[in-house]
Amino acid sequence: MSTAPLSDETRSLLAQLSTATLTSQLMARGLRNTFMQGVRRLTTGGPSMVGEAFTLRYIPSREDIDVSAVFEDRNHPQRKAVETVPPGHVMVIDCRQDNRAAGAGSILVTRMMVRGAAGVVTDGGLRDSPAIAELDFPVYCAGPAAPSNITRHHAVDINVPIGCGEVPVYPGDIIVGDREGVVVIPPHLADQVARDGYEQSLMEDFVTERVMAGESIFGLYPANAEGMERFRAWRQGR
Amino acid sequence: MSTAPLSDETRSLLAQLSTATLTSQLMARGLRNTFMQGVRRLTTGGPSMVGEAFTLRYIPSREDIDVSAVFEDRNHPQRKAVETVPPGHVMVIDCRQDNRAAGAGSILVTRMMVRGAAGVVTDGGLRDSPAIAELDFPVYCAGPAAPSNITRHHAVDINVPIGCGEVPVYPGDIIVGDREGVVVIPPHLADQVARDGYEQSLMEDFVTERVMAGESIFGLYPANAEGMERFRAWRQGR
Amino acid sequence: MSTAPLSDETRSLLAQLSTATLTSQLMARGLRNTFMQGVRRLTTGGPSMVGEAFTLRYIPSREDIDVSAVFEDRNHPQRKAVETVPPGHVMVIDCRQDNRAAGAGSILVTRMMVRGAAGVVTDGGLRDSPAIAELDFPVYCAGPAAPSNITRHHAVDINVPIGCGEVPVYPGDIIVGDREGVVVIPPHLADQVARDGYEQSLMEDFVTERVMAGESIFGLYPANAEGMERFRAWRQGR
Amino acid sequence: MSTAPLSDETRSLLAQLSTATLTSQLMARGLRNTFMQGVRRLTTGGPSMVGEAFTLRYIPSREDIDVSAVFEDRNHPQRKAVETVPPGHVMVIDCRQDNRAAGAGSILVTRMMVRGAAGVVTDGGLRDSPAIAELDFPVYCAGPAAPSNITRHHAVDINVPIGCGEVPVYPGDIIVGDREGVVVIPPHLADQVARDGYEQSLMEDFVTERVMAGESIFGLYPANAEGMERFRAWRQGR
Amino acid sequence: MSTAPLSDETRSLLAQLSTATLTSQLMARGLRNTFMQGVRRLTTGGPSMVGEAFTLRYIPSREDIDVSAVFEDRNHPQRKAVETVPPGHVMVIDCRQDNRAAGAGSILVTRMMVRGAAGVVTDGGLRDSPAIAELDFPVYCAGPAAPSNITRHHAVDINVPIGCGEVPVYPGDIIVGDREGVVVIPPHLADQVARDGYEQSLMEDFVTERVMAGESIFGLYPANAEGMERFRAWRQGR
Amino acid sequence: MSTAPLSDETRSLLAQLSTATLTSQLMARGLRNTFMQGVRRLTTGGPSMVGEAFTLRYIPSREDIDVSAVFEDRNHPQRKAVETVPPGHVMVIDCRQDNRAAGAGSILVTRMMVRGAAGVVTDGGLRDSPAIAELDFPVYCAGPAAPSNITRHHAVDINVPIGCGEVPVYPGDIIVGDREGVVVIPPHLADQVARDGYEQSLMEDFVTERVMAGESIFGLYPANAEGMERFRAWRQGR
Repeated sequence: MSTAPLSDETRSLLAQLSTATLTSQLMARGLRNTFMQGVRRLTTGGPSMVGEAFTLRYIPSREDIDVSAVFEDRNHPQRKAVETVPPGHVMVIDCRQDNRAAGAGSILVTRMMVRGAAGVVTDGGLRDSPAIAELDFPVYCAGPAAPSNITRHHAVDINVPIGCGEVPVYPGDIIVGDREGVVVIPPHLADQVARDGYEQSLMEDFVTERVMAGESIFGLYPANAEGMERFRAWRQGR
Repeated sequence: MSTAPLSDETRSLLAQLSTATLTSQLMARGLRNTFMQGVRRLTTGGPSMVGEAFTLRYIPSREDIDVSAVFEDRNHPQRKAVETVPPGHVMVIDCRQDNRAAGAGSILVTRMMVRGAAGVVTDGGLRDSPAIAELDFPVYCAGPAAPSNITRHHAVDINVPIGCGEVPVYPGDIIVGDREGVVVIPPHLADQVARDGYEQSLMEDFVTERVMAGESIFGLYPANAEGMERFRAWRQGR
Repeated sequence: MSTAPLSDETRSLLAQLSTATLTSQLMARGLRNTFMQGVRRLTTGGPSMVGEAFTLRYIPSREDIDVSAVFEDRNHPQRKAVETVPPGHVMVIDCRQDNRAAGAGSILVTRMMVRGAAGVVTDGGLRDSPAIAELDFPVYCAGPAAPSNITRHHAVDINVPIGCGEVPVYPGDIIVGDREGVVVIPPHLADQVARDGYEQSLMEDFVTERVMAGESIFGLYPANAEGMERFRAWRQGR
Repeated sequence: MSTAPLSDETRSLLAQLSTATLTSQLMARGLRNTFMQGVRRLTTGGPSMVGEAFTLRYIPSREDIDVSAVFEDRNHPQRKAVETVPPGHVMVIDCRQDNRAAGAGSILVTRMMVRGAAGVVTDGGLRDSPAIAELDFPVYCAGPAAPSNITRHHAVDINVPIGCGEVPVYPGDIIVGDREGVVVIPPHLADQVARDGYEQSLMEDFVTERVMAGESIFGLYPANAEGMERFRAWRQGR
Repeated sequence: MSTAPLSDETRSLLAQLSTATLTSQLMARGLRNTFMQGVRRLTTGGPSMVGEAFTLRYIPSREDIDVSAVFEDRNHPQRKAVETVPPGHVMVIDCRQDNRAAGAGSILVTRMMVRGAAGVVTDGGLRDSPAIAELDFPVYCAGPAAPSNITRHHAVDINVPIGCGEVPVYPGDIIVGDREGVVVIPPHLADQVARDGYEQSLMEDFVTERVMAGESIFGLYPANAEGMERFRAWRQGR
Repeated sequence: MSTAPLSDETRSLLAQLSTATLTSQLMARGLRNTFMQGVRRLTTGGPSMVGEAFTLRYIPSREDIDVSAVFEDRNHPQRKAVETVPPGHVMVIDCRQDNRAAGAGSILVTRMMVRGAAGVVTDGGLRDSPAIAELDFPVYCAGPAAPSNITRHHAVDINVPIGCGEVPVYPGDIIVGDREGVVVIPPHLADQVARDGYEQSLMEDFVTERVMAGESIFGLYPANAEGMERFRAWRQGR
């Protein structure tokens, strides 16, 4: 299922769309399980997140293997992942939904930001969360967690298929995050989902405007023939 | 157990009281389970919420029944509920405490706001939560959830008794929400609970003032005879 | 394991350190389970929290024992604890991780603040949470909960060893809280952990500065010989 | 979606099939969520369970409404349901997956058995579970629970659509239970699912026989052309 | 609330009653939370369990304190509790509902059996569960767990009030266990609950007999005047 | 950390030891997290389980990828794993503790049994569980689950490090299962743990015998100098 790289146009469209709109588009294509459960935005600033998935997989840690000295090895998967996630990609970290320890902390997250990553997502915890929260960078996690990764997590693989927040994530999947959460889009659907999602969002802007003006949702949401006609007129008028 | 409609006086008193005060009044009347569990305020602005319950019941969805086309039917319970909740009432949505999908989104919530509903509460998710969060309207849920209701929920009934956040909710129950959460008051108790709660809140204002001034809680909280005397004096002095 | 009281120097150092740094120091000494799970900062203002633990233990409540009248007794453990927690100490309340009812409310929390306590922590709920949230005082809990303690909790013991957020807490343990959460330090380790943690935090400030400037983490985090040399130079330059 | 009553032939086929086979057949028709979660067989004896769903809905109980006296009313939904579930039907009870109290006890279950019901299923608890366990009757629940229904549950509706174990159940759905658990089949699919499921079960008997004889699963499970040929020969030979 | 010791008559009555009957009697006296949640019978043989509560309290363990050497101390609370639980008493162990490690194992349970204890209950795990399961002795737990107590639990107190399975347990409370689970009876209610429970159980035997004979529950369960009359006749006939 | 293959002597010793004894031996070597949580024996017959881990990793499934046709591919990881697990090895399946769907069913489990595997373990569900339960073969899971793996699980990797029941499992780790559950032993510790565990089990047999004879645990469990002397005498006498 190799696909062309994410086009600038699609990237730009996705950055304007909500995860609500995108899950609707994916649902219309038969994909019901695309929104990460239990994963929330940590940073209050920063743009929406759009990028290809670059993954890191953790298993539970073991006391005799997971000691601080491991980080001296440049090939330690956690550290290596941070230094190799390509610009424009989203680091997605599988912590098995265990947020009792951190998947990363502010130094590593900052390094990924500086290296040009598009964002960081984990279904585990993040440490130094108050410092991370102030970065101008999209970061998502399942909660703050001071303990370092090795207290519960052992980094084992880079860029393999993983689960994150109960959703499958394959390297190269398109990851989009807004203030609501994070959605995963198979790459071969990205262009179509972006385009149709954009149409949907225009329609919803129109409907919201009419609803704010006091109109009923009947005939508008979903739109019947007359509603569609009015939408087209509204759209042309913009 | 038919009761008179909620009086303006009681509505006004309830709007000034905290859910903490109200749960105490209900506990004093033998009702221990009146505070919705896992339900949090989503909107940062807007007033306190007071109104009679108007309910919507969901069961789990089924792939062949719950498809987008259902919303074209004006009698679809979710859409019909939104267009029929009476002004001054609170829409209470039973999502079986499953917040992996939304019970509603910003267009429907906005429509209910415009129609004059007193607020919206669900023990499921809400989608478009960033947009809803900015409405000047009381909205409560168990978390943000981008997936639309049909991915997990099937709207089945309007205005029947339901559970919400582990609390029983009968149509017409008085629903009150503050920044802490949501409490459910049987209608025949509303007047009394409002009046006694108001007395309790005055007493607690007095105690808080004295505690801030450095006094011990002994004799004040709860008040002994002398404490009651001082409270009455303080009250008259206001 | 009697220890000297917490020195001003250690107290002052701990107030500057993050719980992330402190859990690392404790992990290095073989203690993996020191960060309270599910406990979050409620107050947005106020300083970091540092103080010796003073504990309150709850068991589940029973309808015939736990009635409002109990609070008239000055020896009721909850009220007595509030009036006896020593200045500079942190009140740590074991609610068995049940946040469906409150361990305390704003009047009691305010009283502890006025009495000079260093903070309040519970793995249960807190009521009047909107009022508490505005205090200039470190307060942590597992969530807002309007129902009063007696609906689910029975205060039974003062200053005995307890669990809080899955962490053991002995009276006199050093409790430190920042915006991330709360860590528990055995008192005999406090001086050493504070001093070594301070060194660690300087190193991490240096690394963060270099990472923001575009450097790789390799050689810096952890630092190799050259990295240590550069750190020492940076440190002298401050 | 009105359908003919369950035919004797289909009922008889379904009684021979496993829930594993039936979920596969439903999955092949696009239905992924048909197996009740957390619901286990309580009775060790008795046949498989097959019958149309007759439902009972509970909401959370309220102390002032749910008192023992309610059972004196012959129209109390729990008691009325027990006396009206038609012979050959399965009583399905929605307890909101809360097994801290019972949905029913041995007297009511026995009454349903004597009246000719095809079985009882709840996602709540059952009381007198040791007595029920010895009945020659299919009974399923989420665990033993001594407290009577009114401690947590309020019976509110008979024969409306419900959720049970996270699965939607409509009155008239075909409920099948074996030693593994309970599956829900939309009635319009029952004949087809029964017939195709029977074919599948024959094939699996053949495969199991070959696997026990030492053959590889490749070519057999799933069967390729040669495997199908051998299956047909085996089948004719029976 | 000091009470006379459990009389032989009451002990004997309680041993014949089910926990379902006993929770009903306690519910009728305003106590809704008396059945331990998540606690199941481990031993398949042995009698019903009746006895006064003797308690053991655990908090979470700490790596530097909870090492095997602690058991050399004869005053270690776990070992001391095992050697001091009085004959006829039930050992109730508070493991904070954490069954990831054991509260005790077969040697300690066997010692308590030999010493004449009436049973053992914990809301944590038990190790050597296959060996324990074969003892002729009432034992209840939240599941098998091979890891020894010190991996997660630290024994801290003997015979203080505790929680077990979400129920408050005071030393001296009457603990009754059957094949369904465990109920906690305040001692001052034991005689009355036993006597009234016995009456209730007779009535239920009568009703069960009638239901098995094909009668409706209406008029019998609950019994109206005629039903009561028939019950009295039945009773005399026995 | 390559190690010699599991010797016959160690395999034979481990087969006689309980998981309780083995977790104690591992705890003494600093490993606290070695017992799989939530994983129970499914088969009532069959021997203890001892063997090297051969692993299968699942991630969440996706509707467009995980369709029945995938099993026609001989390289599908689930089917390939079943046909390649070496004799004497234990198949360990990581289902992310999600038992709502099966990791395998009776045909695949039977094939592994026939091929000489030492057992099957998963922290997910198993389908056809009644049929599996009757095999003379060690099988462990987190519960019965009729839905096939593709409803929730996607097989992705063979023989990589995984988590199972919250425990890390590396290919080649020694997996031991008894009626209590499953423990994971790092291979370089297996010989030592087996030998010391055997000594421990003898001592516990001796202590159990003395306890059954009415002796106190003091001086025996743990044994003091005199207790050790008596143990040595007892041992020689066997």
